[in-house]
Amino acid sequence: MNKPLRYPNGQMPLQTSQKQSAARRGMTLEHDLNQSNQYYLDHDLAVIYKKPTPIQVVKVDYAARNKTKIIEAYYQTPSTIDYSGVYKGYHLDFEAKETHSKTSFPFRSIHPHQIDYIEKVLKHGAISFVIVRFVFYDKTYLVEGDKMVNVYRQRERSSIPYSWFEENAYLVPSSFYPSLDYLKIVDLILPKEVNQ
Amino acid sequence: MNKPLRYPNGQMPLQTSQKQSAARRGMTLEHDLNQSNQYYLDHDLAVIYKKPTPIQVVKVDYAARNKTKIIEAYYQTPSTIDYSGVYKGYHLDFEAKETHSKTSFPFRSIHPHQIDYIEKVLKHGAISFVIVRFVFYDKTYLVEGDKMVNVYRQRERSSIPYSWFEENAYLVPSSFYPSLDYLKIVDLILPKEVNQ
Repeated sequence: MNKPLRYPNGQMPLQTSQKQSAARRGMTLEHDLNQSNQYYLDHDLAVIYKKPTPIQVVKVDYAARNKTKIIEAYYQTPSTIDYSGVYKGYHLDFEAKETHSKTSFPFRSIHPHQIDYIEKVLKHGAISFVIVRFVFYDKTYLVEGDKMVNVYRQRERSSIPYSWFEENAYLVPSSFYPSLDYLKIVDLILPKEVNQ
Repeated sequence: MNKPLRYPNGQMPLQTSQKQSAARRGMTLEHDLNQSNQYYLDHDLAVIYKKPTPIQVVKVDYAARNKTKIIEAYYQTPSTIDYSGVYKGYHLDFEAKETHSKTSFPFRSIHPHQIDYIEKVLKHGAISFVIVRFVFYDKTYLVEGDKMVNVYRQRERSSIPYSWFEENAYLVPSSFYPSLDYLKIVDLILPKEVNQ
């Protein structure tokens, strides 16, 4: 944990620190991403949204005044990953996961069909990645889609060690606003992924 | 209705006819698009999905065996448009609407925030458009995003006449499988929109 931070491409991390501020403490990754996406939208940098959770509606009550009330419904397994949008003409598609483990990121956090999805969109030219937050360290990493697919497919154990992220992923700069400036990292990976 | 069909760019329509087959009769536009998107996925041409309808969940019942049952929820107004995905490295984002009118497409079918959304994603390099089906004629048109934004903003009446679509939009080729081969039209508009 004390070695100098370095990105996989050899660059040093961006200057913003990831120290937890009082304001941010306890904020979930989803909250931070939604706030950052709002920042990107307000500043006309990108249009990125969290996809709604798919819900199967079984029964509705039209008797309620004003609006239709859903009275029986179930969560469905999503066919895709959580976030998508457009940035500098590129299609962005990514998943976000938190783990409370100090040592590793369990593979069971990602569904096999999500790995298939990442592989497919990459093939069609998307910029796809997984954002993983280690809550204990309050560190958030961006893992390029092809790396996540490879490590997932070659899996020799049930999880990815924390040290793997330090060596193979990008530390996402964190601040007050935007909470997580992950587009700074996307800028670093744009040409590599697009020209591959 | 009897004049020769021609695309706005001067090209003649693709050869597939839009005659209604017995199998397709009564199929909704959403059904046809979902089937076409499945075709594109199966044939490894593109990855395009309908975004789930956003639903605000108010109350759930954990007592149900196996899975969480939602017992109070409401439909929310979507912040985005219906379909998105990646094709040839481009971000696709589009809305689909049916009308039963023989004469025109009412502007009230599209929310102002959806027009704003189309304008924003176009600005960031997306390929964005609106697919409009005139159910009476069983004809489905693709309207480029910038044209839809313009005609919506300049609106002098409450709807767009059917003749406007004949002159300004692309007739989407229809067949058995895929039901609506709209990527054929996207191919025609790709360079124009991207290089603008």
